[in-house]
Amino acid sequence: MCRWLAYSGSPIALADLLYKPEHSLIDQSRHARLGVETTNGDGCGVGWYPDTSGGTGPGEVEPEPAIFHATGPAWSDRNLLELSRCVRSPLFLAHIRASTGTAVQQSNCHPFRYGQWLWMHNGAIHEFPALKRDLALAVDPLLYPFVEGSTDSELMFYVALSLGLQDDAPLAVERMIGLIEDVGERRGVPNPLQMTVAVSDGSRLWAFRYSSEHNSRSLFFSTDVRTLRALHPEIPVLHEVADGTRIVVSEPLGDLAGAWNQVPESSYGVVGNGHGALHALTPRKP
Amino acid sequence: MCRWLAYSGSPIALADLLYKPEHSLIDQSRHARLGVETTNGDGCGVGWYPDTSGGTGPGEVEPEPAIFHATGPAWSDRNLLELSRCVRSPLFLAHIRASTGTAVQQSNCHPFRYGQWLWMHNGAIHEFPALKRDLALAVDPLLYPFVEGSTDSELMFYVALSLGLQDDAPLAVERMIGLIEDVGERRGVPNPLQMTVAVSDGSRLWAFRYSSEHNSRSLFFSTDVRTLRALHPEIPVLHEVADGTRIVVSEPLGDLAGAWNQVPESSYGVVGNGHGALHALTPRKP
Amino acid sequence: MCRWLAYSGSPIALADLLYKPEHSLIDQSRHARLGVETTNGDGCGVGWYPDTSGGTGPGEVEPEPAIFHATGPAWSDRNLLELSRCVRSPLFLAHIRASTGTAVQQSNCHPFRYGQWLWMHNGAIHEFPALKRDLALAVDPLLYPFVEGSTDSELMFYVALSLGLQDDAPLAVERMIGLIEDVGERRGVPNPLQMTVAVSDGSRLWAFRYSSEHNSRSLFFSTDVRTLRALHPEIPVLHEVADGTRIVVSEPLGDLAGAWNQVPESSYGVVGNGHGALHALTPRKP
Amino acid sequence: MCRWLAYSGSPIALADLLYKPEHSLIDQSRHARLGVETTNGDGCGVGWYPDTSGGTGPGEVEPEPAIFHATGPAWSDRNLLELSRCVRSPLFLAHIRASTGTAVQQSNCHPFRYGQWLWMHNGAIHEFPALKRDLALAVDPLLYPFVEGSTDSELMFYVALSLGLQDDAPLAVERMIGLIEDVGERRGVPNPLQMTVAVSDGSRLWAFRYSSEHNSRSLFFSTDVRTLRALHPEIPVLHEVADGTRIVVSEPLGDLAGAWNQVPESSYGVVGNGHGALHALTPRKP
Repeated sequence: MCRWLAYSGSPIALADLLYKPEHSLIDQSRHARLGVETTNGDGCGVGWYPDTSGGTGPGEVEPEPAIFHATGPAWSDRNLLELSRCVRSPLFLAHIRASTGTAVQQSNCHPFRYGQWLWMHNGAIHEFPALKRDLALAVDPLLYPFVEGSTDSELMFYVALSLGLQDDAPLAVERMIGLIEDVGERRGVPNPLQMTVAVSDGSRLWAFRYSSEHNSRSLFFSTDVRTLRALHPEIPVLHEVADGTRIVVSEPLGDLAGAWNQVPESSYGVVGNGHGALHALTPRKP
Repeated sequence: MCRWLAYSGSPIALADLLYKPEHSLIDQSRHARLGVETTNGDGCGVGWYPDTSGGTGPGEVEPEPAIFHATGPAWSDRNLLELSRCVRSPLFLAHIRASTGTAVQQSNCHPFRYGQWLWMHNGAIHEFPALKRDLALAVDPLLYPFVEGSTDSELMFYVALSLGLQDDAPLAVERMIGLIEDVGERRGVPNPLQMTVAVSDGSRLWAFRYSSEHNSRSLFFSTDVRTLRALHPEIPVLHEVADGTRIVVSEPLGDLAGAWNQVPESSYGVVGNGHGALHALTPRKP
Repeated sequence: MCRWLAYSGSPIALADLLYKPEHSLIDQSRHARLGVETTNGDGCGVGWYPDTSGGTGPGEVEPEPAIFHATGPAWSDRNLLELSRCVRSPLFLAHIRASTGTAVQQSNCHPFRYGQWLWMHNGAIHEFPALKRDLALAVDPLLYPFVEGSTDSELMFYVALSLGLQDDAPLAVERMIGLIEDVGERRGVPNPLQMTVAVSDGSRLWAFRYSSEHNSRSLFFSTDVRTLRALHPEIPVLHEVADGTRIVVSEPLGDLAGAWNQVPESSYGVVGNGHGALHALTPRKP
Repeated sequence: MCRWLAYSGSPIALADLLYKPEHSLIDQSRHARLGVETTNGDGCGVGWYPDTSGGTGPGEVEPEPAIFHATGPAWSDRNLLELSRCVRSPLFLAHIRASTGTAVQQSNCHPFRYGQWLWMHNGAIHEFPALKRDLALAVDPLLYPFVEGSTDSELMFYVALSLGLQDDAPLAVERMIGLIEDVGERRGVPNPLQMTVAVSDGSRLWAFRYSSEHNSRSLFFSTDVRTLRALHPEIPVLHEVADGTRIVVSEPLGDLAGAWNQVPESSYGVVGNGHGALHALTPRKP
């Protein structure tokens, strides 16, 4: 199990959200409250899309999002702190990992990247070793060599890509869920899937909440920046961001109620271009 | 012994210089030609000053330079590649390390930082264990707690800071050299110092070349951007940078002659505000 | 703050004690109960003296204890698990670290070693940056170059070595405590020291408990192997070890009462050659 | 490409072979002479079978070989040095890695282990991304979940296990070679395989040399301990080991001729129970 945060809105320094809130993601790495594990110390990562609001200047322009992956706990990672203070982005994903068994290594750190796409996951595929080969076979042979790590999370990403993520993200995730449910059924694994997932192509951000037993890990989104500002005085940057700014988190960044709305069971939200929406999520078996 | 590169000029992505040249710093980590060691695989680091040319946007503005330190070889460090592609800076220092005995750990990676200042070093203090305590005692007691690692290089930085680096950098380095020569003499260590050093406060960049026996490690600077452009077609960004742009390197980034000038023995160069100059370096004993 | 375990008795595999107990040291790395921090994820280490009971065979005989230091959390360190299962020792020290501010790096991992001696520490020197230089000056100039890391714990070791640890361990520790109290007084730092320390020369094992305010971190020792056997059925090796076997721990390895005795405030225990004893600890100012 | 060493004979400390020879494996990590790369700095590993010659004492007896994997260069790994000095073994495999593209992470370090078996590899499967999925499909579904890393080398191990390694090692390796040749042919990859491989079950040690183009990486074995003793005075332990002791290496441990015999193209050697033999290696297509 893990914790994650996704941001979409006015470009801000990553540190404004990752370090400054009362119950920030970095704080959650040592003291998560809503997770299965209180400690998320098995690596961390951020992925961010470039801030092109100030022009680009000389030299190359990177179309791909950038990623940073580290194997140590987020709370003591000095490089993460440094880059979070100097990197400014309008859309970024951050993740702290609590391994459910697979190795602690950079290639198992979220977010995962393929071209323009970023993906991160909290949860697990139950009895993953028993289902892994079937899921690997569901990956498009052309995509197969890009699977670098050994996690269920990354394999879910490549299954979703193979099922059309780049064309219709919610549909592909519904198919991915359906496939995992189907494989679980065939292999005799009840309730195989537990997930909250964030995925982005750089312009939109989707956040999914689902579990086979309809008892999913927590997922919250911010609806109104004005409420966030009032509830989080320790995050001064909130006073400068545009009204359409949205934050999606595994668990709220502070104690006060009102700013954070729970994403309902079996549903997903989409954020981008200044507006957001919630939809039902329907598994689609193969 | 190590290899390093310092850049001052138009803001560019770090990767343009660190990865693209034929004989780039990253290439030198595995195949240095002019160094005592061909392999510089004991850690790496970059330090960079922010590019404020495009305005700063919402949120905090960091006055300090940022640093990235990693303990593995530069050639396989994916985080270094990622950040080098997305970070743009008008003044940065990059370093690949070949340890002369001290531990391979982030706190021993260059560049070192104190407030606005960055410092990196190639070379060694000979018989450092025999001289270390005397040098540590020469560090201002208020600065002493900031020494984090165990290298000669970092201790040289704090000795120079204690001797006035922030007021007059060349004078402080001359005093630091004089102190090391003096301590070496008192402890019976002949020719105690071998160094090329780069130091910056964010507006100026100084590069020093010195050794007790007047047989110093190599150090080169670029004088004319137009020549650089002609000799390094594999670095397209050179066509976009301003004419005052300067690069200082432990060894040239390519084979062709003409673009790279050797810094003379016992001298230093200073770059900034569009012009540069070379001066003699005179050790000043305490 | 940290957690540690020290063992003296019949040679056993390290894993028997580090992994098998209900509330083992490895379990404590994620879920400490009596510590200031529940998470001890900032590195780990073990130091062990060789088992010479079976003869030595061909090749070199190492007189020094061996050490293993890792920067990641103990709970996910595969090398620690591997070596704990294959290394057998009659006297070993194990430590999991929760940094009080200094860098997470191997040279800051306990136990520290000097020649035949091992040292590990739980606690802190308060306002260490303010006292560090004075303590460093108290280290014998011949020992000074051996200080490799940046922790208060290692510096305490070298101060104790400078004050005669190898001649009379308890006396040297009393002098070290007195010196730290004295330096704290001179620098205006009230209650400067908080410590439990284990130290060994390979034949004896000392465990010290002290704090300036007489409110020290917890420290327990096992008195009777027969009670331990009854209370820890999950540690089968206890049935095979000699009666003089002793374990000293920051916190007990299980819930049941009876097997673990608290070391009193301001006192120390010594174990070795089949017997143990408790003594009062009297700080001795310089 | 990589370098490796395998030892079978009287129990010795690993350090006697890994560190003491003039051109030791650790020295080869920085200065290989016969390899494609002079630097092998992308991780290292050792696997060893326990020395049971002195009895086992109290506590558990581990039937499996132990492994140590590290991601940094061997030359600066202090844990490798420590354990090499204290671990004594009659049969061990040691490996230094130069990645051919896959990630530098512990799960990609050799030797790989499955139950009683250890496997390590020098070489590459050419255009591995194009062949990887076909090879993964050839792994027995029951073994598939045990593949942890992303290298060609580990996948070869699991293909060989799936083709009967535990029943008849040379036959399984011949089948594995045949399968890779067949997959290469079907996918249009000429000369897909380059390998030297060491494999052991704890009693026997096999060393294979093969490449599709019959131009394989170097592989040497020691035939006569008396010659080794004369040529390697810097390895004193050779004077104490039994006459049947054998060493197999990617490149010789010293300059002098006479002690090291090249394993012929397309052949393999087997060592164990005091005798050794060389055989031809015949690829067997599926």
